Amino acid sequence: MAEGKISSAVIKRLPRYYRHLGELLEQGVERISSGELSERMKVTASQIRQDLNHFGGFGQQGYGYNVKYLYTEIGKILGLDKKHNVIIIGAGNLGRAIANYANFEKRGFVITGIFDKNPAASERELKGKRVMDIGELEDFAGKNRIDIAALTIPKDEAVMVADRLVRLGIKAIWNFAHTDLNVPKDVVVESVHLSESLMRISYKLVNGDEE
Amino acid sequence: MAEGKISSAVIKRLPRYYRHLGELLEQGVERISSGELSERMKVTASQIRQDLNHFGGFGQQGYGYNVKYLYTEIGKILGLDKKHNVIIIGAGNLGRAIANYANFEKRGFVITGIFDKNPAASERELKGKRVMDIGELEDFAGKNRIDIAALTIPKDEAVMVADRLVRLGIKAIWNFAHTDLNVPKDVVVESVHLSESLMRISYKLVNGDEE
Repeated sequence: MAEGKISSAVIKRLPRYYRHLGELLEQGVERISSGELSERMKVTASQIRQDLNHFGGFGQQGYGYNVKYLYTEIGKILGLDKKHNVIIIGAGNLGRAIANYANFEKRGFVITGIFDKNPAASERELKGKRVMDIGELEDFAGKNRIDIAALTIPKDEAVMVADRLVRLGIKAIWNFAHTDLNVPKDVVVESVHLSESLMRISYKLVNGDEE
Repeated sequence: MAEGKISSAVIKRLPRYYRHLGELLEQGVERISSGELSERMKVTASQIRQDLNHFGGFGQQGYGYNVKYLYTEIGKILGLDKKHNVIIIGAGNLGRAIANYANFEKRGFVITGIFDKNPAASERELKGKRVMDIGELEDFAGKNRIDIAALTIPKDEAVMVADRLVRLGIKAIWNFAHTDLNVPKDVVVESVHLSESLMRISYKLVNGDEE
């Protein structure tokens, strides 16, 4: 079990640890030293020891970390031992990509509904689910728990739909629209701004990567 | 023109400034005070003044910032005044979403080639371009300049394809695969790890957002 309070800097790094530990598990690795993990993750070994120290000091001299234990504990902290119901709003290519990403489901993120403002005939089905009209959102939300809503729609629509989601009491928005969303403080917004990501590449190409 | 060296912390924030300034331009706003920009971007006004001070002190008392000037200057620093040739490897939903995102082209990122290891009949065309077989990559790279390669393929393939890209001298990889890529230091890798993004939501839902 995690000991004491974990700093937000460590928390930010946990998903990456979780990913690497998951890869190690897939490869059948049962334990790993901080040195090996350091080489793999390109993080200093002392950083790793400091970060993972929060998880009960399982990095023992001459033994290393128990991969499965760490993976499970970090998963719990990240809330991955719970099931999250996810709806996708926008059944275009990006929405379809997310709906079809099997890894999400494996980690407890279950797609329970897909909406579009104009479900074209060819897109009426996605992962065996009917693509609902966005007009059905309120009705659906009244009958089903929704934990997370992914917005894969253009920015103007995203702003309006985000307001509707807030009114429906949905507490987390995964925003792919090219805009910020103004929502109350108790609503979690995680934005994936792809064009900002591209700009960072462009900057590094032009100026050299100094990180 | 930018004055002196800009810190990497400021650089990281530039894409977001660029996005907001672009939105203001679209709305016909010609100038904006640090206070208004602060409210819009949820950043303190003093942070904004400090950041934008690098661009020639154009935030004058009682005048505010010239939106178009700042937008243009930040664009130059980000390398957006140059054309970048982008290839996409993986013509699945995510690759298609990226190929169809018109905003990228507007900012100088031009999709010049799309590859897949098994271009299905239904996917042979994308944005009016033939989806090439991944076997054609070396031939294509010999005849065309490639600045950025987007990898929208599963992780095992991504690792192998990244090696090929490095051998072809491609200097930037936009990685969507759920893994890190080991490439030489002079190759820029920008990763978009969607599942890590989802985990951050999950963490905040379960533990409360303390940021």
